[in-house]
Amino acid sequence: MTTALEDLNARIDAAQAAFEKGRAADPHTRASWLEAAAAGLETDADSLVEIAHEETHLGDARLRGELKRTVFQLRLFAAEIRQGEHLDATIDHADPDWGMGPRPDLRRLNVPIGVVGVFGASNFPFAFSVMGGDSASALAAGCAVVHKAHDGHLNLAVRTAETVIAALDAAGAPSGLFSLVTGRPAAEALVDHPAVKAIGFTGSTAGGRALFDRAAARPEPIPFFGELGGINAVFVTEGAWAARREEILCGYASSFTMGMGQFCTKPGLLFVPRGQTDLVRRVLSGALADFAATQLLSSRLHDGYRQSVARLQSNAGVEVLVEGDFAETPAPTVLHTTAAAVRSDPSILRQEMFGPASLVVEYGDESELPALAELLEGQLTTTVQAEPGDDVSDLAARLTDISGRVLWNGWPTGVTVSYAQHHGGPYPATTSATTSVGTAAIRRFLRPVAYQSFPEARLPEPLQDANGWNVPQRVDGVWRRPVIAEGLPGSEAQR
Amino acid sequence: MTTALEDLNARIDAAQAAFEKGRAADPHTRASWLEAAAAGLETDADSLVEIAHEETHLGDARLRGELKRTVFQLRLFAAEIRQGEHLDATIDHADPDWGMGPRPDLRRLNVPIGVVGVFGASNFPFAFSVMGGDSASALAAGCAVVHKAHDGHLNLAVRTAETVIAALDAAGAPSGLFSLVTGRPAAEALVDHPAVKAIGFTGSTAGGRALFDRAAARPEPIPFFGELGGINAVFVTEGAWAARREEILCGYASSFTMGMGQFCTKPGLLFVPRGQTDLVRRVLSGALADFAATQLLSSRLHDGYRQSVARLQSNAGVEVLVEGDFAETPAPTVLHTTAAAVRSDPSILRQEMFGPASLVVEYGDESELPALAELLEGQLTTTVQAEPGDDVSDLAARLTDISGRVLWNGWPTGVTVSYAQHHGGPYPATTSATTSVGTAAIRRFLRPVAYQSFPEARLPEPLQDANGWNVPQRVDGVWRRPVIAEGLPGSEAQR
Repeated sequence: MTTALEDLNARIDAAQAAFEKGRAADPHTRASWLEAAAAGLETDADSLVEIAHEETHLGDARLRGELKRTVFQLRLFAAEIRQGEHLDATIDHADPDWGMGPRPDLRRLNVPIGVVGVFGASNFPFAFSVMGGDSASALAAGCAVVHKAHDGHLNLAVRTAETVIAALDAAGAPSGLFSLVTGRPAAEALVDHPAVKAIGFTGSTAGGRALFDRAAARPEPIPFFGELGGINAVFVTEGAWAARREEILCGYASSFTMGMGQFCTKPGLLFVPRGQTDLVRRVLSGALADFAATQLLSSRLHDGYRQSVARLQSNAGVEVLVEGDFAETPAPTVLHTTAAAVRSDPSILRQEMFGPASLVVEYGDESELPALAELLEGQLTTTVQAEPGDDVSDLAARLTDISGRVLWNGWPTGVTVSYAQHHGGPYPATTSATTSVGTAAIRRFLRPVAYQSFPEARLPEPLQDANGWNVPQRVDGVWRRPVIAEGLPGSEAQR
Repeated sequence: MTTALEDLNARIDAAQAAFEKGRAADPHTRASWLEAAAAGLETDADSLVEIAHEETHLGDARLRGELKRTVFQLRLFAAEIRQGEHLDATIDHADPDWGMGPRPDLRRLNVPIGVVGVFGASNFPFAFSVMGGDSASALAAGCAVVHKAHDGHLNLAVRTAETVIAALDAAGAPSGLFSLVTGRPAAEALVDHPAVKAIGFTGSTAGGRALFDRAAARPEPIPFFGELGGINAVFVTEGAWAARREEILCGYASSFTMGMGQFCTKPGLLFVPRGQTDLVRRVLSGALADFAATQLLSSRLHDGYRQSVARLQSNAGVEVLVEGDFAETPAPTVLHTTAAAVRSDPSILRQEMFGPASLVVEYGDESELPALAELLEGQLTTTVQAEPGDDVSDLAARLTDISGRVLWNGWPTGVTVSYAQHHGGPYPATTSATTSVGTAAIRRFLRPVAYQSFPEARLPEPLQDANGWNVPQRVDGVWRRPVIAEGLPGSEAQR
């Protein structure tokens, strides 16, 4: 099932028309479209989860949790655009005494960029796929979306798109605001099409970079918001190791095998003090002994997983610590190496294994950690396991340099959707400094436009002094925010 | 005078060291560095303006005005970072009842990206050059800057850099925070260097695109914030034409010749109703009769100007309306064509003439204007000249699509530095959706980092509940802003 190029072009044309028709919608109307999509997904949850399970081998609880997250995300984004936070409405009144010379009346607003192409990920069939974070944030921004389905869950993608399109239509959204295409030719043509103004992507570094290059090489280059994964290194201080090594190892085992290790936030590296290799092996073996393995997402990913473990294992100084297997439902593998080995070949630290495997690195002295961190490429997350008295300021500074989220005594798997979330990091974690998770993701699909000396009635509502939409406005440098009603959406609890 | 590659590398290394040393500085300390640079430029104004005049042929009043703007900009940015607006500090407290499942404590902050390469522009030797908007915003963000001097005003660039470096040193900024390099090999190596994390550029479309491609092709691609110029079309409605055609033509003549037409915001296209060609010629000829031409910025630009006018003139349907010349101090040229001609060859609308020339396009009916606007490429600005009763909503929507600033009954030359300014536009106006003018320019050189479950004392100050820096914080979705003292900086008047 591959979308013909003429069908792709027709969908992009329809998306452009829907974008133009819908972009003047007020925030409440637009929010109602997101909420309709959310309600549609909830209504069809049973059948969607069943198809998802068949195609991805992910369990019922995981899939229902992921769908819940996807629905929540749509509602949180709806609430965010109702507040008008994303508009960044800024008003500078004319000022004859402005320090550099008289200032005209100047007002700036974020407007949606147009049609967005969104590529679904294999590993989150709901949350990073058809109506996942990229699509939700693009629609929240006021854009139209053409979604490229991931081959790994094609039936689910088609079925989810039907649900979403029916819900959007019933809610009165312009026809064509969201559509789905399949197959590689359509994918490439989507990136090339002049009406497409940005791409959202979650996937492999190789595939993402190829599409990034394609987007940058267009006559009119467009932003490519790619989330290409990462290694997610965890650093255990000597103090933390002494105080709670078994707890840390159990947490690690649980985190790197979660979802069969098929998370972009899987901890792929654990730095621990040297000298207790046997203990590490024993504790990890115990923690993994009862692990209930399931199939990986696809046989292609299974092959890639086996090859990546074999490749890392072939490096000098890398050994097997806990022996897993590569059966249809693979038992987890833990590899082991030393700081000396990675210093002589830092590429050891840069090899992602997409599946239930991870690498333990023994260091000699805690003071080595900042320099070891500098050997890493850009990361989605890094983690410090430390005790209250530990001085890890140098290490924390290095981790801020190389990652988008730094955790303290936690585990990187599990990415909450909230206002402060940042899911991104220096290349190759992502191809931009933006986030693909959380309300800040909406900003990716907006661009600012300034209006100079416009009469009040000609200005977009959010820029009028009358502020009919009741949005936050920065007026002559000072923010004025409307009072928000009790009980912000997003939390089930009464605030 | 060309910087050797080893010297370039040394300056980048010093910049990286200065960045690391300086990035923890509190906003007041960093603001004092910007203010020291501003004061240094003011102190050296007489000698700097003299050198600038020799190298650029721009007049004393213009250069002093530009220097005033440059100094103002540094102080406005200092005030902006004192407020902490740019940090976007966002705090989500742990919430066991968060709608998608328990939320950990998560806090996000914008941090500086590192060393920034800034390319100076030929046409603004102060405001878009050594310590112009790109450098000021990068330093305000907390980055270090390596500036590539423009060959057109090399002595001025070197002298300005000396002033700035002396001022920064005296103010206690880390040594190496700002430096200057010259020559094309250093320019290319600057874009390639792994420690350089972004480029700010103002210049030609061809030169900018080549460097954009270079930045995108790096092993680690970096953002290229390029301002490549534009045509800045002006649309006159039939009503405005009937009411005040002479005033409009005089304003146009004044705007397109300002600074010898060497502004990226020069109005290069004027759409007017057809049928009064003789009147247009007569009024423009009169308005331009007393024009006091001066030399262009350089002989290379002079050659390019002459060629671009000749090229546009060679198009079918394009004629000379007001004959200028290409003397050392060239008299302005106005070309003329029709809507029919540009519809049959839209490339006529896409040829920038960098100098005192512009193109008048006669249309048949006002209803043609939105479709004519769609023939344009991305613009920094577009302008509507209209009367209160005119229905220009379709046109205004198209202009929002294609430009970064839309003006009402004004002229695009003159770009104020303020909170609401947006100086940028769809490609080829700029290579990103950001602005190179105004306080929003600071955001280009920041990236977000989230901290999960960090103990209060380990968090950066702006993310602590105690809020020692007294910056705006979005807490659990609601912004809390410190009260700002009376008299915001930026305006000389008491508010």
